[in-house]
Amino acid sequence: MIRVGIVAVTGYTGAELMRLLSRHPGAQVVSITGRSEAGKPLRQVFPHLRDVDQPVTAELSDDVEVAFLGLPHHEAAAMTPPLLEKGIKVIDLSADFRLRDAAVYEEFYGHHPCPYLLAEAVYGLPEVYREPIKAARLVANPGCYPTASILALWPALRHHIIKPEVIVDAKSGVSGAGRSLKLESHFSEVNESVRAYGLDGHRHLPEINQELNVAWGRGFVRLTFVPHLIPMTRGILATAYADLTVEWPANQVYALYADFYANEPFVRVVESPPQTKQVYGSNYCYLYPTVDQRAGRLIVVAVIDNLVKGASGQAVQNLNLMAGLPETMGLEALGIYP
Amino acid sequence: MIRVGIVAVTGYTGAELMRLLSRHPGAQVVSITGRSEAGKPLRQVFPHLRDVDQPVTAELSDDVEVAFLGLPHHEAAAMTPPLLEKGIKVIDLSADFRLRDAAVYEEFYGHHPCPYLLAEAVYGLPEVYREPIKAARLVANPGCYPTASILALWPALRHHIIKPEVIVDAKSGVSGAGRSLKLESHFSEVNESVRAYGLDGHRHLPEINQELNVAWGRGFVRLTFVPHLIPMTRGILATAYADLTVEWPANQVYALYADFYANEPFVRVVESPPQTKQVYGSNYCYLYPTVDQRAGRLIVVAVIDNLVKGASGQAVQNLNLMAGLPETMGLEALGIYP
Amino acid sequence: MIRVGIVAVTGYTGAELMRLLSRHPGAQVVSITGRSEAGKPLRQVFPHLRDVDQPVTAELSDDVEVAFLGLPHHEAAAMTPPLLEKGIKVIDLSADFRLRDAAVYEEFYGHHPCPYLLAEAVYGLPEVYREPIKAARLVANPGCYPTASILALWPALRHHIIKPEVIVDAKSGVSGAGRSLKLESHFSEVNESVRAYGLDGHRHLPEINQELNVAWGRGFVRLTFVPHLIPMTRGILATAYADLTVEWPANQVYALYADFYANEPFVRVVESPPQTKQVYGSNYCYLYPTVDQRAGRLIVVAVIDNLVKGASGQAVQNLNLMAGLPETMGLEALGIYP
Amino acid sequence: MIRVGIVAVTGYTGAELMRLLSRHPGAQVVSITGRSEAGKPLRQVFPHLRDVDQPVTAELSDDVEVAFLGLPHHEAAAMTPPLLEKGIKVIDLSADFRLRDAAVYEEFYGHHPCPYLLAEAVYGLPEVYREPIKAARLVANPGCYPTASILALWPALRHHIIKPEVIVDAKSGVSGAGRSLKLESHFSEVNESVRAYGLDGHRHLPEINQELNVAWGRGFVRLTFVPHLIPMTRGILATAYADLTVEWPANQVYALYADFYANEPFVRVVESPPQTKQVYGSNYCYLYPTVDQRAGRLIVVAVIDNLVKGASGQAVQNLNLMAGLPETMGLEALGIYP
Repeated sequence: MIRVGIVAVTGYTGAELMRLLSRHPGAQVVSITGRSEAGKPLRQVFPHLRDVDQPVTAELSDDVEVAFLGLPHHEAAAMTPPLLEKGIKVIDLSADFRLRDAAVYEEFYGHHPCPYLLAEAVYGLPEVYREPIKAARLVANPGCYPTASILALWPALRHHIIKPEVIVDAKSGVSGAGRSLKLESHFSEVNESVRAYGLDGHRHLPEINQELNVAWGRGFVRLTFVPHLIPMTRGILATAYADLTVEWPANQVYALYADFYANEPFVRVVESPPQTKQVYGSNYCYLYPTVDQRAGRLIVVAVIDNLVKGASGQAVQNLNLMAGLPETMGLEALGIYP
Repeated sequence: MIRVGIVAVTGYTGAELMRLLSRHPGAQVVSITGRSEAGKPLRQVFPHLRDVDQPVTAELSDDVEVAFLGLPHHEAAAMTPPLLEKGIKVIDLSADFRLRDAAVYEEFYGHHPCPYLLAEAVYGLPEVYREPIKAARLVANPGCYPTASILALWPALRHHIIKPEVIVDAKSGVSGAGRSLKLESHFSEVNESVRAYGLDGHRHLPEINQELNVAWGRGFVRLTFVPHLIPMTRGILATAYADLTVEWPANQVYALYADFYANEPFVRVVESPPQTKQVYGSNYCYLYPTVDQRAGRLIVVAVIDNLVKGASGQAVQNLNLMAGLPETMGLEALGIYP
Repeated sequence: MIRVGIVAVTGYTGAELMRLLSRHPGAQVVSITGRSEAGKPLRQVFPHLRDVDQPVTAELSDDVEVAFLGLPHHEAAAMTPPLLEKGIKVIDLSADFRLRDAAVYEEFYGHHPCPYLLAEAVYGLPEVYREPIKAARLVANPGCYPTASILALWPALRHHIIKPEVIVDAKSGVSGAGRSLKLESHFSEVNESVRAYGLDGHRHLPEINQELNVAWGRGFVRLTFVPHLIPMTRGILATAYADLTVEWPANQVYALYADFYANEPFVRVVESPPQTKQVYGSNYCYLYPTVDQRAGRLIVVAVIDNLVKGASGQAVQNLNLMAGLPETMGLEALGIYP
Repeated sequence: MIRVGIVAVTGYTGAELMRLLSRHPGAQVVSITGRSEAGKPLRQVFPHLRDVDQPVTAELSDDVEVAFLGLPHHEAAAMTPPLLEKGIKVIDLSADFRLRDAAVYEEFYGHHPCPYLLAEAVYGLPEVYREPIKAARLVANPGCYPTASILALWPALRHHIIKPEVIVDAKSGVSGAGRSLKLESHFSEVNESVRAYGLDGHRHLPEINQELNVAWGRGFVRLTFVPHLIPMTRGILATAYADLTVEWPANQVYALYADFYANEPFVRVVESPPQTKQVYGSNYCYLYPTVDQRAGRLIVVAVIDNLVKGASGQAVQNLNLMAGLPETMGLEALGIYP
């Protein structure tokens, strides 16, 4: 049993980590922290976790082997060096170690507290970086939009069947905006409504671009990324568009994708357009690649649960890889439908 | 491994059974049937079950030891005698064997195909009938509203701290109305709206009344039951009201309930009003008993997931009891929040 | 054209007043205030009001004849005496002048800034107090729950066909909780969930009780009132329960209600259970009275839009009465369905 | 008062027409038809229209001057010639007269019953075809997606600031799928979920393409159009993407759009990304054009209420134009927010 800790358990990703880890047969949560709620039993903060009750403390205990950080950016980075020094491995759910280029980080997030760690951090998308993750002591858990977007476009870019000019139009449930109060997440403002946001450059844009560039391997991918907020709690659907470089029929594209992800435990290439509901509460990503024959464009639809494959589930998947456990351990749950 | 079958897997309770049983370490689903979809792989009907793919057939195979019936009433009863004769135990999710009195059944459902089985059938509410369930070959799985309503009122009636005159005002998500198409479940009719229904006598009324009478043990409980449809998919919240016979403070009532359910694996008596979201996707029932001191009334709020503790989860719980397995096996999942 | 002002236009009731009054042919909004947004054009705060743009100011201008107060309680009361002294009539949407008994007010809201005005204030429910409203200079606009609850029970209590022992179980959309940020109105906490609240005594309880006592006319009505929050933005459905004193068939009860409200412009007694969606955005109250013959109880279902008949629409109805305008002026819109 | 009739009042667009026309000061609804509900009073079908009660009949009366057709395609076309022969003008809400090319119609809808009328029919988008509409006896009311998409892209294409290669990613509420029962509109299938559909070529694709080609004026616009269904009842948000031909800053694009639509009564070019909720129940279209500077792309976000500006409201706008009434008559209502 690997001993793990959760820093800032009181956000949605923290709570989701606790839900998943409390039923994980290979990990033991030995310490959970949360400033505002320190001293309270977890059941008071999260009644759905009543049966895995554990006290919330102010400080992480020293016996953890792997720490999950659910902190805001900047705070996560600031906390990381001392943990690594103690020999504690870190899976950071913030954006602090996702961008390899400190200058890009600074443009979108401001000054980085420990840029020297950027080169060491591994981007925690197992479908792309499985082997480095196994060896890492610092994993940058991907953002929710990037997870869906990168998985949607990676095979097409890697095989150069599209031009390096893509548009990703994403639709997300509101839980992605977190548990902090803001008018944008106020029920009456969001319900029965949809809006685009981040049109000036959402923070997930450079993260997606960085990885698409890697997939493409021949320079910069010209990416437009527009996220939308829709009236549901969980789930992201990303629709990706790009011009095909060759005339490929839909079934050939399907075969390429199915082949590419054939051995992935959590990616499924499906035969009809998926719904987010099909992966609700699960760690799956369902992908549907197709071709707009009239316009000569590739379209890929990707769905994930933003709090599972888009955050805490993927973090547990990374833990499994880092700890030498079966990759799917504790993540076997199927989507909750309807 | 006990071999089980699901008849009519293509409804919501059937799909939910499949979701739960496919990850159940002590049961093996060897046969699933569904008239309209026979011959198709399950993944085509329910993409969320892609990874537990199994063909849907027209007939149940003979090697099942326990059969779950997801059929409409009448059809379930008609199918039961031949199964029992083959030595196959039955867990019926319809209403066909819930009412002990054939005359009451007839009033609400019409003629009963095999009334001689009513006396044998055990009402599958483990918190009340655990021992008989263990020995049963025919279990009538309770309705969703009855599960919440009976658990809410049982301790108070059994201890005679209230008068036998109760009102249950219940609020349900729409999945309780099933997967068959009807205007009442059409998205645009239900969303951003709430309505009462069944005011002339909902079919769950006699079922609730029957068990409340048992709890009371001194005659007939005068019950008014009004269900409401609210714009969500899963969850039932039942609010029960009754005059107290004695002046009891809220904490004493709380203690009585907590004590009554102290050893129950799936009932939790909670300290603040629960939300359905706290038990989403799980087999828990959260109960909050309190007292309206001004009016001298007991109020009990109960929440369940109508498709889990209110249907398929409870059916699995019954399977566990009937098969001598640990009662919580395959049902350990916590609520999906938020 | 009567000159009106809106104090605290930046809440939901303020915005709704502006929406209704900007299309009102007999009233002119000459001044709107809002501390936090003073100086901004209204369109920036509320883009849906783009076409009725008007600057938000810090202070109410002196030329208004009637002022609507959208302030929190205490603040509304504190602001009222100076307005009345200037000869400005007041329609207060807070709870400050709804309770006639200062001691009850103190129990639920704390010290009252100007209790001497309680006797003068008229409870602004036109169906009950039409004539006094016409003559009033201070109208206490009813709460949303009280509007639905009182209209539901008034005829039955007034005609003594029920015992003075009632239960009101109400279900409300989230906009009733206002525009201020709180975890209870955070989208991800409310969506796909339902909860009861105010079980220790919601602030609308004494207000409902006060008016039910008036209807009954023979003493105190023993009332239990439990509100529930459901995942929608607008709408209240109140289900009221009481024992009948006589055996009345449902159609006789229907006739009594239909007769009682025959001349009301905004109350409709309907033949089948209504949905909140049927009155969405309108000033109507739909009432459905029926009888649970088995249990001998009256059940009345009432639906309103909490922001219209439950707040701003009713305030405009009161304005019309006070200003000698046709009662329905500016309130002719039908429900937005689906 | 112009005398109008509604054929097939029992769908959502029919009900919405009735809601709008019943409060229209210049039109009188003299006849409403609906096969399945003929003989019933309208209040029984649509309780929200209780106060404008009118009998539903089987046949349209002959005294109507303008008929609105809410029929499915093919049926609408079949009914049109006899109406025109009687001198009754037609506003058809189906797709039957929207496509000018009978071959394209045949590809997407099958054989056309009266192709000789295609040349005469006027596409009822007032912002583009105001003058022809005024003179028309047959108006093809635009589809909901086309209304939002065409208004979003028209100025940019007409001024050639983008390449003729566009992507429209649209998100729609479920009411657009109509009142007929189908699994895709079943509440539990749609709620808490999002999906893409029509990826093989949605029927609105050729309609959008046809008008974008007109706007462009230099040949064929290479269009990809992907609609998505999101869990809300009303509203469409369309996000349009295209490469800029020149380096234009966002404010210059804004100015071009604001100027283009300066005199339009129902189009508003707004300064921040709009939400569908801002136009809920109203005839407005809010447009937000901006520039993705990094990628050199134009992005335009358009929101409408699919049942108002996207269907029945626009039909009334067309009626006003055809009847020589003020264009905004009966359509003054503001968005219902929140």
